[in-house]
Amino acid sequence: MTQQTLTSEADLIELLAPLTAGAAGAFGLTDDCAYLSPRPGYDLVLKTDPVRAGVHFFSDDPPDAIAWKALAVNMSDLAAKGAEPLAYLMAMSFPEPPTRAWAVKFIEGLRDAQRAFNCHLIGGDTDRSPGPLSISITAIGDVPAGTMVRRATARAGDAIFVSGTIGDSGLALRLHKEAREGRRTSQEQWKLSDEHVNHLIARYLRPQPRLELAALVRAHASASMDLSDGLIKDLERMCKASGVGADIRADAVPLSAAARAVLAVDPHALPTFLTAGDDYEILAAVPRASAASFEGKAAGTRTGMHRIGTFVDRKGVAATGTDGAVLRFDCSGWDHF
Amino acid sequence: MTQQTLTSEADLIELLAPLTAGAAGAFGLTDDCAYLSPRPGYDLVLKTDPVRAGVHFFSDDPPDAIAWKALAVNMSDLAAKGAEPLAYLMAMSFPEPPTRAWAVKFIEGLRDAQRAFNCHLIGGDTDRSPGPLSISITAIGDVPAGTMVRRATARAGDAIFVSGTIGDSGLALRLHKEAREGRRTSQEQWKLSDEHVNHLIARYLRPQPRLELAALVRAHASASMDLSDGLIKDLERMCKASGVGADIRADAVPLSAAARAVLAVDPHALPTFLTAGDDYEILAAVPRASAASFEGKAAGTRTGMHRIGTFVDRKGVAATGTDGAVLRFDCSGWDHF
Repeated sequence: MTQQTLTSEADLIELLAPLTAGAAGAFGLTDDCAYLSPRPGYDLVLKTDPVRAGVHFFSDDPPDAIAWKALAVNMSDLAAKGAEPLAYLMAMSFPEPPTRAWAVKFIEGLRDAQRAFNCHLIGGDTDRSPGPLSISITAIGDVPAGTMVRRATARAGDAIFVSGTIGDSGLALRLHKEAREGRRTSQEQWKLSDEHVNHLIARYLRPQPRLELAALVRAHASASMDLSDGLIKDLERMCKASGVGADIRADAVPLSAAARAVLAVDPHALPTFLTAGDDYEILAAVPRASAASFEGKAAGTRTGMHRIGTFVDRKGVAATGTDGAVLRFDCSGWDHF
Repeated sequence: MTQQTLTSEADLIELLAPLTAGAAGAFGLTDDCAYLSPRPGYDLVLKTDPVRAGVHFFSDDPPDAIAWKALAVNMSDLAAKGAEPLAYLMAMSFPEPPTRAWAVKFIEGLRDAQRAFNCHLIGGDTDRSPGPLSISITAIGDVPAGTMVRRATARAGDAIFVSGTIGDSGLALRLHKEAREGRRTSQEQWKLSDEHVNHLIARYLRPQPRLELAALVRAHASASMDLSDGLIKDLERMCKASGVGADIRADAVPLSAAARAVLAVDPHALPTFLTAGDDYEILAAVPRASAASFEGKAAGTRTGMHRIGTFVDRKGVAATGTDGAVLRFDCSGWDHF
């Protein structure tokens, strides 16, 4: 029964409809459009960041993980802007109609993610098209009017903070690829425990948007963005947009226990952590005067925010290694083209 | 120079940025998210309807026409809901990086469409992915709070109206396919002038969302939706959602001069007009008492609205032909699966 293929768009819409519960303007997906009644005195914050099989996930990844990631990567942007999630629209394109079992599992993942992020599906579209499975979510959040935290407003002298840990997903991608092929080459080379491997792969499959930091970022940061294409590349982007440069200390960049284990085996791995994509952490500029207070308050959250350097009145990003030498990068991060 | 391929996402973003002029919350596409300050007392109306090469257009269609259609199909939904366009986000996926010439032309088409529909690009995303060129637009409009016109609220006794003319795009698709292969088979069979053919193909390539009817629909219609998957199928959807049925007179369905010319050669073509997709006209339910007034006011717009039947207290859609016999349809319209 559950291996049955869904034969019409209406079948899939019927399965998706419960995800709109609580969102009056979604009409249980029975209308052509959705409406949203904004809170007076708030701005809406909007983002669209599609995910596609072969780029952001593997088509045989667990459907609930695919769903989680599709929503999480958009919520990560909202968090970095200081916004609170409200709702999302989702356009899906299938190369082949999914089985009912796949769709049910996918929707379970969306439901978990919605609950975790406190938002609802309000509309969307599904169609068939050759090419990889693609999920285009448009996320909508809000902030008190005029308070969205921008990318282009970092100032020389501001402290540079990142949340969570950096570089896990880059490691995970390699481990996950090998696991799919039944190999443990890198795990053995890096002498990683199964616990380390599971931690890293969860970081890749189920990124955790840092929504618990949104209010703090809004209150303290002069600029903020989420990290999705590699720390160095995204930091370069913030610098370029803001007309400043950055000095960071590589040994201050927060690493997971698993990443530190890799580093113990391969001391040259650090640059790859700093340029790997899919971190979904927050990069924030915080004025020097409030940096300590910000760090203290952030320490009360699950991941904290870690000071890694300072914005400077100069162009470019310079990273210094543990030995004080400037690190070189073959490539600063991921370009979508 | 213009045949150069765009080698980075940044190049394309730079070309797209001028489309945000006038939209403060877009930050010229230099930020990760956009913001929108809602008008007090208004609801936002949201829609996402992606278009893909091979489904909604051909990959070698003029890039400006592809851009126009990508935006127009979403604006058509807003118009049917009685909403006024505000802004849109656009996620594009390219199988290969486009040439600069293609991108420039595409953006020209978007600029024309934005001006025609009175809205701005405020954000988006571009990436590369195998599979057809895909453009996912999320359109945002607004209506005075609580006035979005729904699909599920047609009542038995309401008059059924459609805007413009029906079935043109279905004819156009056949002519356009043949023209791309250097054939004129259907044009000759149907004895169509070049003017007819050009009119029909323009209907396929450059649909005109009926935004000039939005305020009238909002003021008079008890239910409304846009026609994209075929008149009969979409009417069935409105009936099902509203718990009513519909009687329509096929000879009251408005047809273009070109479609009438086809009908003169092939009197059996009518059902195909009523089930062909891509009309992008408005289907509205209007209470009997105000139907005449609505029709009169709509007559002052470019296309008018044409009464084709009545919603009834029964299930299903019945269409009567010119001879009074009930028309049969092999298939009521387009399913996306």
